[in-house]
Amino acid sequence: MEELKSLASVLLCVLCLCSAVVNGSDYVKYNTGAGVVAGKLNVHLVAHSHDDVGWLKTVDQYYVGSNNSIQSACVENVLDSVVEALRRDPNRKFVFAEMAFFHRWWVGQSPEIQEQVRKLVDASQLEFVNGGWCMHDEATTHYVDMIDQTTLGHHYIKQHFNKTPKAGWQIDPFGHSAVQAYLLGVELGFDSVHFARIDYQDRAKRKEDKSLEVIWRGSKTFGSSSQIFTNAFPVHYSPPSGFHFELTDDFDPVQDNPLLDGYNVEQWVNDFIDAALTQANVTRDNHIMWTMGDDFQYQYAESWFKQMDKLIHYVNKGGRVNALYSTPSLYTEAKNAANGPWPLKTDDYFPYADRRNAYWTGFFTSRPALKGYVRVLSGFYLASRQLEFLAGKKSPGPTTSALGDALGIAQHHDAVTGTAKQHTTNDYAKRLAIGASEAEVVVSSSLSCLASRKSGDQCTKPASTFSQCPLLNISYCPPTEKGIPEGKNLVVAAYNPLGWNRTDIIRIPVNDANLIVKDPLGNAITVQYVNLDNVTSNLRKFYTEAYLGQSSKQVPRYWLLFQVTVPPLGWNTYFISRAAGKAADSPQDKTVEVGPGNLKMSFSRTTGQLKRMYNSRTGVDVPIQQSFLWYGSMVDTQSSGAYIFRPNGAQPNVVSRSVPIKIIRGPLVDEVHQQFNSWIYQVTRLYIDKEHAEVEYTIGPIPTEDSVGKEVISRMTANMVTEKVFYTDSNGRDFLKRVRDYRADWSLQVNEPVAGNYYPLNLGIFITDKKSEFSVLVDRATGGASIKDGQVEIMLHRRMLADDGRGVGEALDESVCVRDNCEGLTVRGNYYLSVNQLGAGARWRRTTGQEVYSPLLLAFTQEKLETWTESHLTKSTAMESDYSLPLNVALITLQELDDGSVLLRLAHLYEEGEDAEYSTLAKVELKKMFKGKSIKQLKEMSLSANQEKLEMKKMTWKVEGESGKTHSPVRGGPVDASTLVVELGPMEIRTFL
Amino acid sequence: MEELKSLASVLLCVLCLCSAVVNGSDYVKYNTGAGVVAGKLNVHLVAHSHDDVGWLKTVDQYYVGSNNSIQSACVENVLDSVVEALRRDPNRKFVFAEMAFFHRWWVGQSPEIQEQVRKLVDASQLEFVNGGWCMHDEATTHYVDMIDQTTLGHHYIKQHFNKTPKAGWQIDPFGHSAVQAYLLGVELGFDSVHFARIDYQDRAKRKEDKSLEVIWRGSKTFGSSSQIFTNAFPVHYSPPSGFHFELTDDFDPVQDNPLLDGYNVEQWVNDFIDAALTQANVTRDNHIMWTMGDDFQYQYAESWFKQMDKLIHYVNKGGRVNALYSTPSLYTEAKNAANGPWPLKTDDYFPYADRRNAYWTGFFTSRPALKGYVRVLSGFYLASRQLEFLAGKKSPGPTTSALGDALGIAQHHDAVTGTAKQHTTNDYAKRLAIGASEAEVVVSSSLSCLASRKSGDQCTKPASTFSQCPLLNISYCPPTEKGIPEGKNLVVAAYNPLGWNRTDIIRIPVNDANLIVKDPLGNAITVQYVNLDNVTSNLRKFYTEAYLGQSSKQVPRYWLLFQVTVPPLGWNTYFISRAAGKAADSPQDKTVEVGPGNLKMSFSRTTGQLKRMYNSRTGVDVPIQQSFLWYGSMVDTQSSGAYIFRPNGAQPNVVSRSVPIKIIRGPLVDEVHQQFNSWIYQVTRLYIDKEHAEVEYTIGPIPTEDSVGKEVISRMTANMVTEKVFYTDSNGRDFLKRVRDYRADWSLQVNEPVAGNYYPLNLGIFITDKKSEFSVLVDRATGGASIKDGQVEIMLHRRMLADDGRGVGEALDESVCVRDNCEGLTVRGNYYLSVNQLGAGARWRRTTGQEVYSPLLLAFTQEKLETWTESHLTKSTAMESDYSLPLNVALITLQELDDGSVLLRLAHLYEEGEDAEYSTLAKVELKKMFKGKSIKQLKEMSLSANQEKLEMKKMTWKVEGESGKTHSPVRGGPVDASTLVVELGPMEIRTFL
Repeated sequence: MEELKSLASVLLCVLCLCSAVVNGSDYVKYNTGAGVVAGKLNVHLVAHSHDDVGWLKTVDQYYVGSNNSIQSACVENVLDSVVEALRRDPNRKFVFAEMAFFHRWWVGQSPEIQEQVRKLVDASQLEFVNGGWCMHDEATTHYVDMIDQTTLGHHYIKQHFNKTPKAGWQIDPFGHSAVQAYLLGVELGFDSVHFARIDYQDRAKRKEDKSLEVIWRGSKTFGSSSQIFTNAFPVHYSPPSGFHFELTDDFDPVQDNPLLDGYNVEQWVNDFIDAALTQANVTRDNHIMWTMGDDFQYQYAESWFKQMDKLIHYVNKGGRVNALYSTPSLYTEAKNAANGPWPLKTDDYFPYADRRNAYWTGFFTSRPALKGYVRVLSGFYLASRQLEFLAGKKSPGPTTSALGDALGIAQHHDAVTGTAKQHTTNDYAKRLAIGASEAEVVVSSSLSCLASRKSGDQCTKPASTFSQCPLLNISYCPPTEKGIPEGKNLVVAAYNPLGWNRTDIIRIPVNDANLIVKDPLGNAITVQYVNLDNVTSNLRKFYTEAYLGQSSKQVPRYWLLFQVTVPPLGWNTYFISRAAGKAADSPQDKTVEVGPGNLKMSFSRTTGQLKRMYNSRTGVDVPIQQSFLWYGSMVDTQSSGAYIFRPNGAQPNVVSRSVPIKIIRGPLVDEVHQQFNSWIYQVTRLYIDKEHAEVEYTIGPIPTEDSVGKEVISRMTANMVTEKVFYTDSNGRDFLKRVRDYRADWSLQVNEPVAGNYYPLNLGIFITDKKSEFSVLVDRATGGASIKDGQVEIMLHRRMLADDGRGVGEALDESVCVRDNCEGLTVRGNYYLSVNQLGAGARWRRTTGQEVYSPLLLAFTQEKLETWTESHLTKSTAMESDYSLPLNVALITLQELDDGSVLLRLAHLYEEGEDAEYSTLAKVELKKMFKGKSIKQLKEMSLSANQEKLEMKKMTWKVEGESGKTHSPVRGGPVDASTLVVELGPMEIRTFL
Repeated sequence: MEELKSLASVLLCVLCLCSAVVNGSDYVKYNTGAGVVAGKLNVHLVAHSHDDVGWLKTVDQYYVGSNNSIQSACVENVLDSVVEALRRDPNRKFVFAEMAFFHRWWVGQSPEIQEQVRKLVDASQLEFVNGGWCMHDEATTHYVDMIDQTTLGHHYIKQHFNKTPKAGWQIDPFGHSAVQAYLLGVELGFDSVHFARIDYQDRAKRKEDKSLEVIWRGSKTFGSSSQIFTNAFPVHYSPPSGFHFELTDDFDPVQDNPLLDGYNVEQWVNDFIDAALTQANVTRDNHIMWTMGDDFQYQYAESWFKQMDKLIHYVNKGGRVNALYSTPSLYTEAKNAANGPWPLKTDDYFPYADRRNAYWTGFFTSRPALKGYVRVLSGFYLASRQLEFLAGKKSPGPTTSALGDALGIAQHHDAVTGTAKQHTTNDYAKRLAIGASEAEVVVSSSLSCLASRKSGDQCTKPASTFSQCPLLNISYCPPTEKGIPEGKNLVVAAYNPLGWNRTDIIRIPVNDANLIVKDPLGNAITVQYVNLDNVTSNLRKFYTEAYLGQSSKQVPRYWLLFQVTVPPLGWNTYFISRAAGKAADSPQDKTVEVGPGNLKMSFSRTTGQLKRMYNSRTGVDVPIQQSFLWYGSMVDTQSSGAYIFRPNGAQPNVVSRSVPIKIIRGPLVDEVHQQFNSWIYQVTRLYIDKEHAEVEYTIGPIPTEDSVGKEVISRMTANMVTEKVFYTDSNGRDFLKRVRDYRADWSLQVNEPVAGNYYPLNLGIFITDKKSEFSVLVDRATGGASIKDGQVEIMLHRRMLADDGRGVGEALDESVCVRDNCEGLTVRGNYYLSVNQLGAGARWRRTTGQEVYSPLLLAFTQEKLETWTESHLTKSTAMESDYSLPLNVALITLQELDDGSVLLRLAHLYEEGEDAEYSTLAKVELKKMFKGKSIKQLKEMSLSANQEKLEMKKMTWKVEGESGKTHSPVRGGPVDASTLVVELGPMEIRTFL
């Protein structure tokens, strides 16, 4: 029947009329060229794709777009399609951050595409923001790693595009550090930093008083001389609700063709203006930024740009607000022009909670084995680049580049954080292992070369090669385990990457307790043997098979300990041979006070517990107790997980109140062995030449048969009145004051009394009272807190059975398998304890911190002593023999670049006022530092070495309540080209090429 | 601990080595330029996106990409991104079919993009296949609609790109018709047709004997002179499993960068070759086609091309097979060069089953209201274009284009098929309504103009305007319902779109039974009044409110009937006025035999059932019974639904075995009214001037309170020995012989004894025995069958409660609402019955078929008779007054194009041998046909008028078992430019410009 015929003919006469006037072209040239318009509300549309350098998938899977059943994401598509989209309209802009991805893409492009991209970059259509290899985390990263990975990316950008990024784009990391602001921001030449994640209470308050945008001074030392414009987004790094335009999104496109159904331009314009006004209500002045993107968006970029073209065109036609394609730098320029004044922000943005019971403080500790591996390799990378430079970089040949690439990727905010899926984490570890094994080759051959130079050869074929033992901590070291043939020596070379002379007691596994150790002069030195404990034996058996695929051979019987002394940037060699005669058993005894040197520790005879620490040199005497405890993990609508720490009750469970102790004494070290329970073992070591205790913990497999996830802490309770105050470091550099249950920026509502007081540690944590300091240093990124006065706790391991609902979709339940036998991951690591007089702790923390970060690098070979000494330098330094760096300066980068230039970074280690003697201007004499090398030209550079320091320009910003400059920090002056003396003020880092 | 350090360092030394040789560029220039290679297996990759012109979403929603929660699909993205992808590599190719979409896109492009696209088309990178406005259905479409929609698309392609498509690309329609092959294929100049859907038993057999590819001769009349290479795909129109590369697909990309994880080139090459060999095993010669696409794929085309580039590059490097970018035309050329011989295929590919109990024969009837509306407007569009041409096309001004566009879209294989979602179906109806109302304006003004020409004016402002009554079938016609003022007349103009003089009895609703009807000469003619029945009154009330939004005014009391005579391509005018005196009630009576003319029908006194049909002129006398029945719809793992007909038992339920009849007799018509049950009403009309019965059914709302879906049939049982044989038409043109439970091409396994014997009807169905023919014509697309000898059944309406699992995701459960009152859809329509001597039925079917398709077009106004006749031509024809077309020729297109040229299509209506008198060469004298118009130039064109007939070239194909030419059909010769006489052989359609 014909009823349908007239359906809607009444309602739709408009369409009907329109179709009558169709004239064959509906083409609309969108006017997308708007710039900033004064006097209007300007909506800066910043097109971006947030591309995690690994998370649910590995970095390569994300790049090529494989494994899409997990997540449909392909960064190659993003870059392919963005380039096409930008070429369609010269007004379109896009920002890209992650150079690890960009590099993968760039090398696969044809010369034509590369040329197109260069034009887009030159025209500022494509802008690199951040520009590091990844968007690094800010809680669990060491500042040296942050600098290295940023330098890697900035160097790439400089090399291929001659550009220097101007904006920090840390949109996703889970909290923001002081070091990020002043060091990985200002010192890079960034004018601004932008991010999404900020504590929900903080954000609410800042929206209220329009203080999401602030001037941030992250450094006490540098104050206003190192400040940055900081833009915390009002919601997230996605667009306002309804303005997501990914191909796969379910959005109603802007439909501006009146001849087709669903013309909706007015509705879109109104929605746009509404959303703009909503944001304007929480923002100062008349510029707001819309982050037009999200995770792995722009798979087909045109889908976004098409909508934005139309929105800009029609919104601006309406004239009520002004929409424009923009970038963070253009936005910052507009903000700067607005002239303020801006609220001031100091310190940092930790910890981060995104809702009431969701403190992202679990990831400070998540995956401690990965975190430890990253930190070990960070120090190794530093040292191996030194050796690569000192011996001369080989091309072609194995280099340290693969390790640099792997470490760059590992700094990503879902990598070292421990918040990636297990398979992705395995990929990070694999990359690190590949990079490390290549760097090992560099180290061995460089050391061999350098040592062989005695005969003046140019080291094309070193006379000998060293091997190294990365698994030394579980007693696996084939070159030292095997017997030493008659007449030969085990040659042990120790390289010192520090700028100072150093002594350390080293330990190697041996099967013979009848050995003689001689220094290069042929003098026998004191040795100590320690029987290998069962815990280490068992670890060795399981993990060598799990990770090397080799059934463990016989377990070595002893640790051989002896003291080595190594010059700065130099090495020393020790020779071990079999003594004639019978092996001497190492002496063993039990007593209540231990410590062969100045530091003494007392343990309770009955409970086995630590009672006090006493330094006989300084007289500092602190009653102190130490226990292991675990928090049960909450399983609830908000569970504890990879990101979030949420204990299921305020009180952690004590592992044992009474623990047997076994004490081993010797001439070099006293060791206290304590088995706290079947899965926690601790060895406390006091060396004769140190004034701190080295505590080695072995934790795991954490049992979960009771269906309770466990988060294990070591808690130290000192008899000190600390009044809620404790100090934690920022990325291993500045120490920040923390106050329990308190935030400086807003009135804190305490919902999580434990998790909300955790802070990230990379160097350590300390507390003070009126006369003493108690300090703990860590060997990797760790969460720490002081939940009660006098207490310090650090979280060492976590194993859970639930996911915390932030996307990773897996419980953090690490296990290791040998064939079908899987067990929870065991973690072994160290922390370091010291008691000092008030005001004297910094010196220990800074010096020991450097030593922990840059341990001696050991290498082994076998040779006749005489043969060796005839053809090798047994002890040497790259510096002039009487020179060493001042004790307040560290060499944090020494690297030969591909163009032959050398990158040098020196860091003053002390903050202003931190130490009476060392918080002062330090001087480094480069000529003495590099013996035998001549410096042709010295250029001081920005932190990432992508621009000359002199050329860097800073924006000025007016801060609320301030009139003029308030602070002039001490900084080193220009370097005289003839004397080449570099001055460094407190906390200063100077970069040279 | 450091265990992770060495993870996989052993396993991955390969990668480790690779990374050592990275030299800064991984760019690979893929060699994608392969052509056909003789002697190898050639894999033709045909990149395509199958874009339904409406289905789950409306055509505009699909185009702009809105309503993505239903289906993520945006054709604008497809075309945007395909153009970019093709420009990246000149070897890449893509085929596109649906010009309704292409047109939407093209008009929105900038001149630059348009120029780029022209280049891509010129370079054969972008090829139009099919090239119609949509990919039309082949079961429920009328051949005139198929031609029109194809012409629309081909004209567009010709106009903008000067190209003529060469390949039929009917990949998705649910079965394939004979008319498609020989008419909408060969006559368009296509060399090939390609499709995916073929009966599963047929496919299995054809894979077995490698006969998926055949030479198809769809026409008995034309035989080998109209054959086409036909490629039925071995699986579907998607790529081989695993070779889907849509952005959102979960595929592992070809990863050819050894420096990244997951290098998998060998695996891909092997998989490619495996898949190629699998297909080669069921295909003749060494060319196979891979359809690289799927529904709405290539949203981001680069995602596909990138993979194909690599596959071509690496597969061809391997050299075992040859992969190439190709198109259906290139593939067909390769097949043609292979030289055969090929298997022969005749008839068609209906019905289609994709598995055992899944016969796609439900859609032959699904949504009968929509199907009826499409058919009504098809005839109206033909007529309105005639009038538009005759009166002169206005520019600017209302035109018939919107109706042409809407009808073009409606032929899509998810539109008129009734297999789209309800909201999409509403959109089709809306578009048709909009187009129709604009065409009504054209018709009214054209008629007014033509009639006004008496005074010689050029018709800028016609003296009067007509109105029309599209809802006449439910008695809604305001201009005839209102009273006729004293002294005025109701003027009724009837336009005849046929080429023959014709008489018809028309009926209009009136409120006065005291009217006089005069012909133009002033003679009063016979009238008959029939009281309006209650069923029609109720329909009128409900549906005028539902569709017009108007509460129905008073229902008219009578139908006024009178006979009109109208010249070919002309009109006649009748004048109705009130008679003085009292209204005469129309006579009513009851008896057992009805029929005022030659045809008599007898009904049983007791049961009310039809007993026999008897033609007093021819003496044909056939005992015949008619009932309504319904099949219960299966609800099961395979339910009956929009596509699939699956009764829940072989026997349908009889609606009533005894039915009261009401007989109305009169001078013009006898009517038999029968209420079969509360929701089925039937009126059988026998007109004095016709030898057939017109049966009007009103079915609905079909009750479903018993949770049983119902599929309603009218079943006619003639006392004839038919031996399983019956005949159904192909798209309203050829009749094909059908044999119950039998297929000519394979040995049929009968699993669905009813559904598997259904065939699509567009014109009708007939059966024969040794002396008689019994024919049924339909007024719209309908499913029909002969399940027992002597029986004919046609399915008239369906309402179901389950979805049949073929994607539409809705039960076919149509309802209509007035405010909150919804009820099942009621459908009203006609079918036509005739009994003829054996051999004489064709003449009735062909002539009546044309009259049903092209009814008289009625228009109304009021005027004084004298005033009207003074200023108007009351009766006229566009032809010379004594001329009419031969009765075996129909004018199927007469249309003025935008460039002023005129498109003329003439169709011979008879097949070879169908009728002794009419299956002969016919002649049309164009000079006489167009009185007053001069033909400047006459060019014979291909069917879609996109190329000159003379320029068309046919490929030759060798067919198995044939040596030379076997058949020479009668065809018209060239047209002499001076005489302009067009000859047409049986079934010939000739197209002129």
